[in-house]
Amino acid sequence: MTFKLTGGRIFTGGVFVKEDLYLEGDRILQIGGSAPFDASEDVSGSRIVPGFIDTHIHGGLGVDFVQGMPALEKLSRTFPAQGLTGYLPTITGPHNEMKKAVADVRTAMKMDLGSRVLGAHVEGPFLNPKRKGALNAGSLETPDLDSLVDLIGRGEGVAKMTVAPELPGAEKIIRYLAAHGVIASIGHTVATSEIAEKSIAWGVTHATHLFNAMEPMHHRKGGVLPVVLSRPEVVCELVSDLIHVEPAMIQLALHCKKGRINVVTDAMEATGQPDGDYVLSGQKVLVRDGIARLEAGNLASSTLTMDQALRNLVQKMGLPLESVLPLLSEVPADLLGRRDLGRIRPGALADLLVLDDKLTLRSTYVGARKVFER
Amino acid sequence: MTFKLTGGRIFTGGVFVKEDLYLEGDRILQIGGSAPFDASEDVSGSRIVPGFIDTHIHGGLGVDFVQGMPALEKLSRTFPAQGLTGYLPTITGPHNEMKKAVADVRTAMKMDLGSRVLGAHVEGPFLNPKRKGALNAGSLETPDLDSLVDLIGRGEGVAKMTVAPELPGAEKIIRYLAAHGVIASIGHTVATSEIAEKSIAWGVTHATHLFNAMEPMHHRKGGVLPVVLSRPEVVCELVSDLIHVEPAMIQLALHCKKGRINVVTDAMEATGQPDGDYVLSGQKVLVRDGIARLEAGNLASSTLTMDQALRNLVQKMGLPLESVLPLLSEVPADLLGRRDLGRIRPGALADLLVLDDKLTLRSTYVGARKVFER
Repeated sequence: MTFKLTGGRIFTGGVFVKEDLYLEGDRILQIGGSAPFDASEDVSGSRIVPGFIDTHIHGGLGVDFVQGMPALEKLSRTFPAQGLTGYLPTITGPHNEMKKAVADVRTAMKMDLGSRVLGAHVEGPFLNPKRKGALNAGSLETPDLDSLVDLIGRGEGVAKMTVAPELPGAEKIIRYLAAHGVIASIGHTVATSEIAEKSIAWGVTHATHLFNAMEPMHHRKGGVLPVVLSRPEVVCELVSDLIHVEPAMIQLALHCKKGRINVVTDAMEATGQPDGDYVLSGQKVLVRDGIARLEAGNLASSTLTMDQALRNLVQKMGLPLESVLPLLSEVPADLLGRRDLGRIRPGALADLLVLDDKLTLRSTYVGARKVFER
Repeated sequence: MTFKLTGGRIFTGGVFVKEDLYLEGDRILQIGGSAPFDASEDVSGSRIVPGFIDTHIHGGLGVDFVQGMPALEKLSRTFPAQGLTGYLPTITGPHNEMKKAVADVRTAMKMDLGSRVLGAHVEGPFLNPKRKGALNAGSLETPDLDSLVDLIGRGEGVAKMTVAPELPGAEKIIRYLAAHGVIASIGHTVATSEIAEKSIAWGVTHATHLFNAMEPMHHRKGGVLPVVLSRPEVVCELVSDLIHVEPAMIQLALHCKKGRINVVTDAMEATGQPDGDYVLSGQKVLVRDGIARLEAGNLASSTLTMDQALRNLVQKMGLPLESVLPLLSEVPADLLGRRDLGRIRPGALADLLVLDDKLTLRSTYVGARKVFER
């Protein structure tokens, strides 16, 4: 069946074009021109953009991905309402709970739940307790290859793992991840610049929530940040609630990385819920005015959604929409090696969002199927 | 008279070429080809590079530019031995001493002393006491246009002035400098990112010793640094002794600024002198192992020379010679609007250095005249 979306401005090749968009099966057939079609919808006045992909999200609506299948099922159904058409469920917690959740992610990847489960992001256990952020110190481990293999096997269904490279034995972990096609991401770390450089040689290609859970840069002790900001091999996550990182520093990151930034929410179970007291990694988290903090005051994950992240960057910071959209779609798709996602072009999967002029989500398509409508 | 330098590799247009170099009068006549000549010198095995220009240097050999003419005469004669063919004597101290020194700089600019005096860099008095570094707090003033006009007149002979834009009244100072062709440089400052952005709108185009005497970047309080690192309008000074700023942060700055960095020494009167106790801006400075510090431990200026700065960046950091040389020559020349300096090309002034393969200075030419030979 061929479906036509008509009257919208389509984001393709870095610009908006006003053309008809034809979908066939679960993919994009053609942009513009004319073709026979079975059904059509008029979205005049709207923008059609690629669906968002969040590579760092812990949960929402009162559930956390460490809980496995129930959380995966619930959130995959509801994420399209935030513009998420694909994501990496991010898993942190005690070893055996993480292991079971990773197994559930493998199963969920084969299911048709709504938003696509694109693999697990395992945030732990080989992280530095000195920069644990809101993670539970009791679940952290010293790097050990046997433990890693027990946790993730040969990496099936694991898209990304965050590691602190300064920990003894981290080199073996990073080399194993790289050899098994898992993105090795530097994070929750106090590494020096020298170790950060080495970790890139071992296989690190990504940085977890850039700036957060890392040492601030000092001109006589730079640490991880000047390295990941300078080295083009490293794509960097950025939590774009404008709270975790202030606008001037986001500008710096965008300038340094020339667009190799993937916007993430790092959202936790309080997302989409009222202010109140929640639990993250077994610790109490207080959500006030939508800001999640540990009792000690540290920022603890976020309650951000991707559609809000887009509005923050475009409407509050004044960045051009055309430069921001790829950070939520094409960059994470490329990071995951998924050239069939994150962009609107013939042959790509038809994961699409229809936005109005205020960048409010009107409807969401996954594989050409409408899975959300306001 | 036409002079030929033969057998050297000439740095021109970003690369080294092995050609003969012809000089006529005080300028470069041609690179390569053949022409009649009156005299020649064989520099086989050497590199011929543009003379270095230091836009931030306080003194050396026991004298400080706030002393005026005696220091200008002494150091202009000796700077060619460090590869300096032009410089901005940097003046800091009590108002009336600075005023007199600025007047002496105007006179020295018209004299033929050796290294070219290209104008004064006035470092003060409108700086933030919270980030005074090694400057004397007693000489600092709240921004006041009458005081500025008393100090520098209409800017004759003043190439650059460092200002802290967050001080009340700084906007008027910066606008005056910009309107009178004086480079307004942000420095000795605790400005927020917002004020730093505004200061660029007022006319700031330069940052004084990037990273030093500024607040370190924090991701929730970026300050001046993310702004000057991101905005292409701002050229940034970098003290390249590898002590003021560590290599990873230098890499970050080079990455951010795409070469719009001018290497400076910020050297003080102890440069070229033995370790010992010195005075800078009326304060005691202890020089140990060539590192100058106040008694409280703060870095106080440096004992760096430009030829050593080159070797630091190329030999210790491993940066390509071709990418470093412009930072010591073409970038500062362009900053000063002197397209006739800082590069080897027909018509430019023949300010040249002959370096051996270890980047040791063999000889220095200013206006085609040899003013130093080892």
